Amino acid sequence: MSNSIGEKFRITSFGASHGKAVGAVVDGCPANLELSAEDIQKELDKRKPGTSSVTTPRKEADEVQILSGIFEGKTDGTPIAGVIYNKNQHSKDYSMFKNTPRPSHGDFGWMMKYGNYDYNGGGRGSGRVTIGHVIGGAIAKKLLKTKNIEIISHVVQIGDIKAEPQDFNVIKENIEKNPVRCADLNAAEKMEELILAKKQEGDSVGGIVETIAVGVPQGLGEPVFERLDGDLARILMNIGAVKGVEIGLGFDIANHAGSEINDEYQIENGEVTTKTNNSGGIIGGMSNGMPIISRIAVKPTPSISKCQNSIDLETMENKKIEIKGRHDPCICPRVTVVAESSTAIVLADHMIRSGFIHPTDLKH
Amino acid sequence: MSNSIGEKFRITSFGASHGKAVGAVVDGCPANLELSAEDIQKELDKRKPGTSSVTTPRKEADEVQILSGIFEGKTDGTPIAGVIYNKNQHSKDYSMFKNTPRPSHGDFGWMMKYGNYDYNGGGRGSGRVTIGHVIGGAIAKKLLKTKNIEIISHVVQIGDIKAEPQDFNVIKENIEKNPVRCADLNAAEKMEELILAKKQEGDSVGGIVETIAVGVPQGLGEPVFERLDGDLARILMNIGAVKGVEIGLGFDIANHAGSEINDEYQIENGEVTTKTNNSGGIIGGMSNGMPIISRIAVKPTPSISKCQNSIDLETMENKKIEIKGRHDPCICPRVTVVAESSTAIVLADHMIRSGFIHPTDLKH
Amino acid sequence: MSNSIGEKFRITSFGASHGKAVGAVVDGCPANLELSAEDIQKELDKRKPGTSSVTTPRKEADEVQILSGIFEGKTDGTPIAGVIYNKNQHSKDYSMFKNTPRPSHGDFGWMMKYGNYDYNGGGRGSGRVTIGHVIGGAIAKKLLKTKNIEIISHVVQIGDIKAEPQDFNVIKENIEKNPVRCADLNAAEKMEELILAKKQEGDSVGGIVETIAVGVPQGLGEPVFERLDGDLARILMNIGAVKGVEIGLGFDIANHAGSEINDEYQIENGEVTTKTNNSGGIIGGMSNGMPIISRIAVKPTPSISKCQNSIDLETMENKKIEIKGRHDPCICPRVTVVAESSTAIVLADHMIRSGFIHPTDLKH
Amino acid sequence: MSNSIGEKFRITSFGASHGKAVGAVVDGCPANLELSAEDIQKELDKRKPGTSSVTTPRKEADEVQILSGIFEGKTDGTPIAGVIYNKNQHSKDYSMFKNTPRPSHGDFGWMMKYGNYDYNGGGRGSGRVTIGHVIGGAIAKKLLKTKNIEIISHVVQIGDIKAEPQDFNVIKENIEKNPVRCADLNAAEKMEELILAKKQEGDSVGGIVETIAVGVPQGLGEPVFERLDGDLARILMNIGAVKGVEIGLGFDIANHAGSEINDEYQIENGEVTTKTNNSGGIIGGMSNGMPIISRIAVKPTPSISKCQNSIDLETMENKKIEIKGRHDPCICPRVTVVAESSTAIVLADHMIRSGFIHPTDLKH
Repeated sequence: MSNSIGEKFRITSFGASHGKAVGAVVDGCPANLELSAEDIQKELDKRKPGTSSVTTPRKEADEVQILSGIFEGKTDGTPIAGVIYNKNQHSKDYSMFKNTPRPSHGDFGWMMKYGNYDYNGGGRGSGRVTIGHVIGGAIAKKLLKTKNIEIISHVVQIGDIKAEPQDFNVIKENIEKNPVRCADLNAAEKMEELILAKKQEGDSVGGIVETIAVGVPQGLGEPVFERLDGDLARILMNIGAVKGVEIGLGFDIANHAGSEINDEYQIENGEVTTKTNNSGGIIGGMSNGMPIISRIAVKPTPSISKCQNSIDLETMENKKIEIKGRHDPCICPRVTVVAESSTAIVLADHMIRSGFIHPTDLKH
Repeated sequence: MSNSIGEKFRITSFGASHGKAVGAVVDGCPANLELSAEDIQKELDKRKPGTSSVTTPRKEADEVQILSGIFEGKTDGTPIAGVIYNKNQHSKDYSMFKNTPRPSHGDFGWMMKYGNYDYNGGGRGSGRVTIGHVIGGAIAKKLLKTKNIEIISHVVQIGDIKAEPQDFNVIKENIEKNPVRCADLNAAEKMEELILAKKQEGDSVGGIVETIAVGVPQGLGEPVFERLDGDLARILMNIGAVKGVEIGLGFDIANHAGSEINDEYQIENGEVTTKTNNSGGIIGGMSNGMPIISRIAVKPTPSISKCQNSIDLETMENKKIEIKGRHDPCICPRVTVVAESSTAIVLADHMIRSGFIHPTDLKH
Repeated sequence: MSNSIGEKFRITSFGASHGKAVGAVVDGCPANLELSAEDIQKELDKRKPGTSSVTTPRKEADEVQILSGIFEGKTDGTPIAGVIYNKNQHSKDYSMFKNTPRPSHGDFGWMMKYGNYDYNGGGRGSGRVTIGHVIGGAIAKKLLKTKNIEIISHVVQIGDIKAEPQDFNVIKENIEKNPVRCADLNAAEKMEELILAKKQEGDSVGGIVETIAVGVPQGLGEPVFERLDGDLARILMNIGAVKGVEIGLGFDIANHAGSEINDEYQIENGEVTTKTNNSGGIIGGMSNGMPIISRIAVKPTPSISKCQNSIDLETMENKKIEIKGRHDPCICPRVTVVAESSTAIVLADHMIRSGFIHPTDLKH
Repeated sequence: MSNSIGEKFRITSFGASHGKAVGAVVDGCPANLELSAEDIQKELDKRKPGTSSVTTPRKEADEVQILSGIFEGKTDGTPIAGVIYNKNQHSKDYSMFKNTPRPSHGDFGWMMKYGNYDYNGGGRGSGRVTIGHVIGGAIAKKLLKTKNIEIISHVVQIGDIKAEPQDFNVIKENIEKNPVRCADLNAAEKMEELILAKKQEGDSVGGIVETIAVGVPQGLGEPVFERLDGDLARILMNIGAVKGVEIGLGFDIANHAGSEINDEYQIENGEVTTKTNNSGGIIGGMSNGMPIISRIAVKPTPSISKCQNSIDLETMENKKIEIKGRHDPCICPRVTVVAESSTAIVLADHMIRSGFIHPTDLKH
């Protein structure tokens, strides 16, 4: 089990869906960053379920308490522990899942690997553990903002409905206007319909989430084995439900000739830029100053109420399963804040590691 | 700069394309594994250029010497250092690249980040550094074989030509029969033609490489932040030229409903298996006993002889560039052994970490 | 700032003396270990002040809550978060220390390094942070007990009063009989007198704490750079107030010839043992099956009420300081549980790393 | 097995005493440091045996080759691999040690832990592995010199002969004047006599080596678990033959009252200093700007020609052993350069980690 990520800006996450609490300890945030519980709460609220038609109607208050690491309104260089006490979690009986794994849900792995698995609400295999990511990400974002780095994640595909590309500022505005967090408002409407249709059928649907980071300086990433693209790929693939990660053109690059997709250099206002950004802001594992663009493939929520084949691990016999309950028919909208947070954690870590954020930067 | 990867099975790589030598130190291989220089040489030979019509005609002998870590034909638990002395590397003048970065090549990043960059042959930004991966991978594969784990990488797409899926044993056989290392022999022929056509034009082309690992037991991967899929994504994305990584259905999963792609469980010969393998052998970040399947998007070789726009970093003016030389028109065939090696390194590391390979396993 | 230690059994500590809470997250404890809050509370109570004549009369309830990682009375392989909410900590005004560092206290370092320093009660520079060590140590000890490993720390010197060596079982019994936690009851009495005399004078006194671990199998420690003695030295030296660490004969070994102190081998009941244990159970960085014996030099509490020279960091002028308050005149008795805990953390980590505790050991 | 140390400035060491080569890869040295093989050779020559009456008469050329990491006379930010090919190492038959461990020598641990042990010349358990430390240390020292940090190690005790304290500059001068590397020339003479007497008897003798680092800025060290004193203690205790480490007053601190040994602050030329340096330059785990002073207890060379009791691991019977050969009667003089190197590695690492050496510092 490893619940920590990051080298200099380091998140250690803990807690299970229906346990006493979930939370994270963030170590390595430079001292003297203005930070309050509200900064974190704001991000947690984006992740929170029960806020729209396309998410689960489950209500979770998810109020964060900061236990340490802030003195007189600023970080003091010591670990920041954030905790959210779970509430009203034992309303339901999960015992039917104790020996019957849900198809494509992580629970089978947890049962077999650890033996003692808290199956209530998915335990630590639940999407609820991403609260730890969001705590870390909220602090990372605040830190990155001091260097004018901004990150935004938005939904670009749900099922077969694809969004048209939009400008960064339009994305920021538009994703707040619809529950799908899609920047193409026409597509957003169709996506919402599709999700509601799947919900109606007791089914779920997948999608693609794109993340854009602007303002990242040239030179983040430590080749050969701690490259920026490698570290982004890891943290994004580590998000439950993600089955693919791509940077820039991504898989489409396979279809092209070098002469079509090479990013040619130019001098622009005395700065080196590239005419195109097919590389998605990363070449040779290092940021090149262009926007960093990644996309992740998010699978349909595995918990569906349609009847499925499974097994009984005690009797070792085949068994049908119907997963009743209030599951998100599509988790992409809520994954956006997790992708944003994960990207922020990697960028904050590399900004410190590469010396762009110095431990004493914020001192005076 | 970070040139190490792996926690318990750990590779530290060194050397530049035209420097004195390239190599790797492999730490953490359990003692008592039978190992010889030939085991490593065999894998290096697959990576070696100059062996077919579709790779660069450059010849590199790439003979490995083992400096440590083997006693009486077996590993002794101490670090295994492998070194390849570079030969005849200074035949060409690279000085025109000193201040003129090649579009979509890593050299710009190296120049800016480190200031002092060995531009000869691409320096440490060259594909030649993957020799370190292959040394590590060769040892990892030998170790995994003691647990009946086998890994194979093959080309499944070049440009717009896609291969039909094949069985594991057919793949093993067929990839040796054609220079593209594609298991669908019909597609292989067309791929070869496409690569040669691009070569003729002074251009290059991208593709997709798939890796399959069979025999991996259930339970590899350390959630939440050192998941097996996350660690695979990182090491694969860290390979120069890779712009995307997917597991199982990958990006196609976005197009589907949960009921279509969930991997239902069944009891088969007293064992738990899944009816389908859309998850690619990993659910919840842990291996589930099914074949582990990944695909990577490989960009076209950035070094092409067609005229391109670039800049002069000294004068800070725009400048044209034509990259003459013997470059691979498509690196996918040679990337296969690097993908195989990278996958092997991650699996060997997790086999040890999860306790499936015990330090004393091979003692008697 | 780095608040984590251990590779496979890993403690991440957080919190400041007068902040909202102190605690630790313990990651990597194998699943299926029986564990309750009481197991941890028992150890914390040994560390707690206000329990005897020789410690500070400050009362701290220090009640631990476990927030995660236990399911149905057993660890479930997920991180165990333990938290202690600080109580009644703001009873005193610490503002006189804001700009006036206390001689030989860590506060000067914290002020200069982090800029924003919570000077109340010493902040994170307080001995109170060792609560995190004790949480980790309590779990480590419980885990080690499943392999019959036992650890005991006791006071062997206070000022110039030295204890006579005692047998392991006598030590266990006797340290509970006196507030100094010294196993030689005659010496203990004199130590208590000395401490009380120093307290009376508004002064403090140092001492030496010895730790013995019995039952450790042969083969813990990873040469060359993660040797068992190196890892013990680090964690013990990391305890505030420790200025020296020695293993076995320690510094006295300098006075001897090889022929006098070499530990000769013998066969005893079919097992290899050594006739003497001058090496303190570790040779070549690896445990050799004999008891592991370390000693640490603990400095006198730097906070004394006698008048001392210091400075004012704002005016940059010299300034006298008298540190009133209820400080321990000697922290050695309370350090014993911290040394025990620290040793347990290193041993538990290495037991897992060396494969003696397998992740699935406790499964059935 | 773990053969790496350091976080940002990282050494990975390899090779065995009588194998093909020994060496190290140094990763994380900032680019643009002037560096040549001579810089490393100079330090290796201090470690080299056969140079005086008090070391083994064995001759080892120990010529280092740099395989990578230097371009046009300066580091280029890529890993620096240094290798020394072993020569004439198979002149002797070591087979009598195959199953008979030498008392207090590491070989028993290696035999038991790894099963396959290269017993020739002690294998990787030999002091010869410290060549890796010295390669890393030589580069670290060169890097530290750019920040005016200087480190010196000298012998302060051999057997019962103790040296009088000397000033830093006197130490630098005097240690070159005698084979013992002791700065008190009177004591040095007596130490030499004692060592030669022990050599004559076929015995060996221990001692104490002190290391002083001057010019270290205030603020190195990452509390709570990667403190500067903890990291120094680890790397020094990791040196074979070291059984104790102390900082500043060290173990003597136990004998004192707080009022006697607290380091009072003063303003001196506008700077904060302490009137005394009983803390040895480290308080609260962080450097305080005063000289950093450590001492290590070095045991007598375990290999002595006097007859000793051991065992035969094959027959599991007791057996006498006489270790003929040319062993150092006292390794303290040669340990000085290893202590210096180890200290330099930790300081260089922390200088980078704490932001005092920025990756781009040396760029222009």
